[in-house]
Amino acid sequence: MEKVVLAYSGGLDTSFCVKHLSKDLGLEVHTAIANTGGFTAEQLKDIETKAYELGVKSHTTLDVTDSYYTRCIRYMVYGNILRNNTYPISVSSERMFQALAIVNYAREIGAKHIAHGSTGAGNDQVRFDLTFQILAPEINIITPTRDLKLSRQYEIDYLKKEGIVRDWTKMEYSINKGLWGTSIGGKETLTTRQTLPENAYPSHVTAKEESRLVKLTFEKGEIAAIDGKKYENKVQAIQDLEEIGCQYAVGRGMHLGDTIIGIKGRVGFEAAAPMMILSAHHTLEKHTLTKWQTYWKDQVANWYGMLLHEAQYLEPVMRDIEAMLESTQRNVSGDVFVRLYPYRFVVEGVETSHDLMNSGFADYGEENRAFTADDVKGFTKILGNSLKIYNKVNPDEMK
Amino acid sequence: MEKVVLAYSGGLDTSFCVKHLSKDLGLEVHTAIANTGGFTAEQLKDIETKAYELGVKSHTTLDVTDSYYTRCIRYMVYGNILRNNTYPISVSSERMFQALAIVNYAREIGAKHIAHGSTGAGNDQVRFDLTFQILAPEINIITPTRDLKLSRQYEIDYLKKEGIVRDWTKMEYSINKGLWGTSIGGKETLTTRQTLPENAYPSHVTAKEESRLVKLTFEKGEIAAIDGKKYENKVQAIQDLEEIGCQYAVGRGMHLGDTIIGIKGRVGFEAAAPMMILSAHHTLEKHTLTKWQTYWKDQVANWYGMLLHEAQYLEPVMRDIEAMLESTQRNVSGDVFVRLYPYRFVVEGVETSHDLMNSGFADYGEENRAFTADDVKGFTKILGNSLKIYNKVNPDEMK
Amino acid sequence: MEKVVLAYSGGLDTSFCVKHLSKDLGLEVHTAIANTGGFTAEQLKDIETKAYELGVKSHTTLDVTDSYYTRCIRYMVYGNILRNNTYPISVSSERMFQALAIVNYAREIGAKHIAHGSTGAGNDQVRFDLTFQILAPEINIITPTRDLKLSRQYEIDYLKKEGIVRDWTKMEYSINKGLWGTSIGGKETLTTRQTLPENAYPSHVTAKEESRLVKLTFEKGEIAAIDGKKYENKVQAIQDLEEIGCQYAVGRGMHLGDTIIGIKGRVGFEAAAPMMILSAHHTLEKHTLTKWQTYWKDQVANWYGMLLHEAQYLEPVMRDIEAMLESTQRNVSGDVFVRLYPYRFVVEGVETSHDLMNSGFADYGEENRAFTADDVKGFTKILGNSLKIYNKVNPDEMK
Amino acid sequence: MEKVVLAYSGGLDTSFCVKHLSKDLGLEVHTAIANTGGFTAEQLKDIETKAYELGVKSHTTLDVTDSYYTRCIRYMVYGNILRNNTYPISVSSERMFQALAIVNYAREIGAKHIAHGSTGAGNDQVRFDLTFQILAPEINIITPTRDLKLSRQYEIDYLKKEGIVRDWTKMEYSINKGLWGTSIGGKETLTTRQTLPENAYPSHVTAKEESRLVKLTFEKGEIAAIDGKKYENKVQAIQDLEEIGCQYAVGRGMHLGDTIIGIKGRVGFEAAAPMMILSAHHTLEKHTLTKWQTYWKDQVANWYGMLLHEAQYLEPVMRDIEAMLESTQRNVSGDVFVRLYPYRFVVEGVETSHDLMNSGFADYGEENRAFTADDVKGFTKILGNSLKIYNKVNPDEMK
Repeated sequence: MEKVVLAYSGGLDTSFCVKHLSKDLGLEVHTAIANTGGFTAEQLKDIETKAYELGVKSHTTLDVTDSYYTRCIRYMVYGNILRNNTYPISVSSERMFQALAIVNYAREIGAKHIAHGSTGAGNDQVRFDLTFQILAPEINIITPTRDLKLSRQYEIDYLKKEGIVRDWTKMEYSINKGLWGTSIGGKETLTTRQTLPENAYPSHVTAKEESRLVKLTFEKGEIAAIDGKKYENKVQAIQDLEEIGCQYAVGRGMHLGDTIIGIKGRVGFEAAAPMMILSAHHTLEKHTLTKWQTYWKDQVANWYGMLLHEAQYLEPVMRDIEAMLESTQRNVSGDVFVRLYPYRFVVEGVETSHDLMNSGFADYGEENRAFTADDVKGFTKILGNSLKIYNKVNPDEMK
Repeated sequence: MEKVVLAYSGGLDTSFCVKHLSKDLGLEVHTAIANTGGFTAEQLKDIETKAYELGVKSHTTLDVTDSYYTRCIRYMVYGNILRNNTYPISVSSERMFQALAIVNYAREIGAKHIAHGSTGAGNDQVRFDLTFQILAPEINIITPTRDLKLSRQYEIDYLKKEGIVRDWTKMEYSINKGLWGTSIGGKETLTTRQTLPENAYPSHVTAKEESRLVKLTFEKGEIAAIDGKKYENKVQAIQDLEEIGCQYAVGRGMHLGDTIIGIKGRVGFEAAAPMMILSAHHTLEKHTLTKWQTYWKDQVANWYGMLLHEAQYLEPVMRDIEAMLESTQRNVSGDVFVRLYPYRFVVEGVETSHDLMNSGFADYGEENRAFTADDVKGFTKILGNSLKIYNKVNPDEMK
Repeated sequence: MEKVVLAYSGGLDTSFCVKHLSKDLGLEVHTAIANTGGFTAEQLKDIETKAYELGVKSHTTLDVTDSYYTRCIRYMVYGNILRNNTYPISVSSERMFQALAIVNYAREIGAKHIAHGSTGAGNDQVRFDLTFQILAPEINIITPTRDLKLSRQYEIDYLKKEGIVRDWTKMEYSINKGLWGTSIGGKETLTTRQTLPENAYPSHVTAKEESRLVKLTFEKGEIAAIDGKKYENKVQAIQDLEEIGCQYAVGRGMHLGDTIIGIKGRVGFEAAAPMMILSAHHTLEKHTLTKWQTYWKDQVANWYGMLLHEAQYLEPVMRDIEAMLESTQRNVSGDVFVRLYPYRFVVEGVETSHDLMNSGFADYGEENRAFTADDVKGFTKILGNSLKIYNKVNPDEMK
Repeated sequence: MEKVVLAYSGGLDTSFCVKHLSKDLGLEVHTAIANTGGFTAEQLKDIETKAYELGVKSHTTLDVTDSYYTRCIRYMVYGNILRNNTYPISVSSERMFQALAIVNYAREIGAKHIAHGSTGAGNDQVRFDLTFQILAPEINIITPTRDLKLSRQYEIDYLKKEGIVRDWTKMEYSINKGLWGTSIGGKETLTTRQTLPENAYPSHVTAKEESRLVKLTFEKGEIAAIDGKKYENKVQAIQDLEEIGCQYAVGRGMHLGDTIIGIKGRVGFEAAAPMMILSAHHTLEKHTLTKWQTYWKDQVANWYGMLLHEAQYLEPVMRDIEAMLESTQRNVSGDVFVRLYPYRFVVEGVETSHDLMNSGFADYGEENRAFTADDVKGFTKILGNSLKIYNKVNPDEMK
């Protein structure tokens, strides 16, 4: 019997797939779930149990959270990456690492097929197919949900006949929790006019204090400590910070993005830790990088985000961009002070020994010791040369 | 007697300049103030009175507010321009139009000299000198404050001897109010760690309602109506919106920027209307522009902001960028709904007949009529070609 | 009977299509050929005759040469566009205008189908399909060559049975002549190691003189005169200049490009007039544009070429780029002197009243009147500020 | 007596400086010449002799050729850097390494002053001053030539009085030979219309054969062998290739550039080896890099060249760009075949095991095994989605 690895989430679609793959297609089903930090141990255990209830040959949890942090989130922080200036590329980036984990596992166990439950209407199908095809062109891809276009009711009935009866009630909103943020889709996000209501967001204001100060310490661009507590495990740092931020319900937003398949799609998100880390890091960079470092980081980081979002994580240029981003972080170390208020936060300031602002060289707007008024006059004179010439040659254009 | 045009603000430095220019340098002093929307009629009248009290030959108010909107603010809105992703280039852009107004006036009245009160430590001296030199290389520039480096006390005493006694008390913060935002400097802004306290900001929460919805209507990228009230006069629209936003104290921020002279400088700002307009406009563009329009707009707009900030408004490339930005706005029309809360606002959604999201063609994440699952499979297959080849040729690189 | 418009070239594939569409599919065949300047009147007449011999209901020549120049070539000159720094995007840009002409014609005569003879292995199928689908989603596309994958022999036999006997001998090289260059494919271009031999190129050195000087006059970026002879008709200017350049066999090259479908493809080309015009125009711009105009032109022009090459001529951003490119040309007027030698040419120099080099303001490397040594010293001092600060703060990094 | 390090070239200006510094300023003169590969051992010996004849306290040759290659030329090759698409940034890049060598030497011997002979009209003064000020703000800079503005005759007479009589005849052209090319200034380069005559170039056609094939082997982007002869010493490889290329007088050109001080300057150059290496490397990259690697390399390389040219080699962003460029070269290995003809060369083709063109996956324009016509149809359909939507929403815009 040929092996198939099924990316299994415990939901209706992939539960149907288990039965369909074994019964209708005669395959030996090995389910796997790739955890990139979005699942708790309990959830993973529950998914495993459900998989075995469906009669899979084996079920495996592939934990790639560290790899996801080291090979992806880290660079998103270096690059202050917000898609369209808004969205921290939360769940969409995790999909890539789930796809990578699944395909590597399939090759490992010698599977001839890989199955996933993506529909034919979104980005995820492209992320999975593309990654599988590139890394394992010899493995066949099966996507029952996309190809058969079955109704939920059909799948429920099919499973019932197989003796699987569960509560398949669809949630009001489709919620995807991940290490780098939670996405929320449905109802209002399908319109252009409305925004998500308070109850659609997983977190709500629970803090007792009106505001709270958090000190985030960075070392070479990476989060290193929260309020003085050091973290070797950056994943843990993100999760702990998320808990703090969620008490103030910060990091919410709505993103309207261009999907890989050319349609515009809207999604809500909640990403307290990512938004705080990105803002704090960005502010620290303003103090420690030169103007052109900032400029070029922004340029390549924007593309890193775009290509990542569009399933191109394996593009070789991504490795080149990572090399550049990493190089820029050599002095991005120091403390950043963030004050949380309900629904918003403010980056108050930074303290860093790499501060290019208060270097003692010269203070902006103050009487300077490092240069004279005559130096600035000479500077301005030469700076104006090209435009003086232009105006002389083309006298009627400027005014 | 040779004429000098002095850019006069009514403050200590330029008041000293009036006397110094006439008495010490023997010039016929014509003061002028260029209003770009930051002054009320009363303030302008007061400045005029003060000028004549100092004995100037003439004083003129040059109103270039409309020109400033049409030739500059408009493009900053088209480009969603925030310097370093933060600062709406408030006062610094106004300086350029003040400089232009002053130099044009000086040429008009045949002045042989232009004087301004900038110090030798900031950006403004470059903005003034550069603009004057480019457009009127034949006119001599005089900058007593920068060159003589006199203390405030010296200037006060000098004026006293000339019979001019006023309250010259220095404000705790240096505040510059302009049409496109108010900048606030001093104390905390001179540090890297601290942020401005509540009392440093001119506006405070005065609204009674917990939140307020504002409908902003755009036509081809320009603000056209507020809550249904149409505005031919865009300057008035900005001023009216500023009043609404200030009741919720929105649009505050701290900017750390690279100055023209190579030093990093920090400044606080309050810009309710600009921030609301920019956010609303940006959201409307997400619905009406293609991915690559957005990308290229961002590229050139970033430079428009940078060059504008760095006194390069007259660079010919600015006209080229304006042509591009204007072209992009042909479909950026519609309503944007912004909800104000104390200290923050949320863009809720948009309504536009140019909406590329809900076009009826296909909905993201929904069963689509416009294409099939097979189409997406073919798409993904071809999309992967280059990386499949790369992986085949360089087999050990990807994983 | 339903109408089909067939893009007809007179070759074997589209000749087969005529018969196939009418006989096998029962359609009323209207052939059309879109001329973008690559065909002579004789060739067009010959194609028409052949179409009627095949029994088409109607045959039409759509002359869109002027439109191709005005809406495309003009901008490629403004942008000095060479794909991958090498290739003037010759035939591939023409395809877009042929596709536009065909689809507009099909809508005009109320055709329900459009057919073209592209194979399934190249860029042209994408250019045609995409353009047709965007502008006429209601029209069905038929591509027999691509779908049936018939051998040449099968097509020849099929036509023979229909009474059509012609010399269908395949040429050694596949040659596509167009207004903006001739592309040459086959044999060597299918390898990576070899280059095309002399005999593969259509033109060879025929000039008697060792070298020849040509004066090209530009007005606002467009070719306006050759050796003093004025041209209102720019297409004619290009054709006349091509004749001159071909006598020296200049403008040859090999291009290795990334195709739309992700594969790298290699092609030879000969484009004497385009290469001379582009080089001359580029040199004239060096004298008449500022550094940042040049920079930004290059940025957007590079994308104009890429998107054009990749069938995205209809992307709205292309109109925005055109607006910018056009704006940059306001002073790109003057004479450029080009000397032709066998297989190469040299741009000797320019004469223009917009020359920013010899403006009389200051000469590079000469004792200057416009500024002093002290000005440059001040300039350098301020210019170094940011790096002085950086080195002070991060003392061990620079060396 | 305080020490001064003088950057000494053996020419009139710096010879005058030796005497002026010791006699007029009372300094202990230590001359130094930084060799970046432009001088022969004989020339360096001759300069040393001349220095001691002038009575210097010490003279030192600082050989930084290897460092110049490793820290600069290498990256220019990785980036295929040609300023304004024309000029290999020959001598101007060497100046930076000469400046670095001089300032490091001055600090080493505890000099309180550094002197150089740059005039006040060019780029070199900025390169020297800036580098000195950044790395040694404590050292005083002396520039007699710039400050005193003495005529050549004055300097000759002054030296005569000091007993120094040499042939100071000025050459017709100012020629600067360097490892990465020779620049030629004077007469025609001061005009916009004329080009340099044959005799102005140092090399002329001496080859007997009509053409010659050269095989250049690259390893990770660096030149590794010429015609099969391996080179560990890349400087030697460049020099040997220069000799080959000079026999065909290839690599000539005229560059019109924007100088640091805002004026446009024109210069001729001869750079056989650089132009051959850059062209060959560029072609090899077309075969081994993906489209987006090429795109991003070009972006950052363009700035690397610009900043290098403008004395900003020490900008921290340069290190970031270098990291990116180096990353891109991991597969840029293989042979490139270049054919030399008098005054021109042609890159015929490449052979590389990293070839993305002939990978056996699929051939452009040929019947493909890797995908079907239906795949391309699906691809095109989805690729068109965004424009189909745009055209539906904005129906009158496209045509």
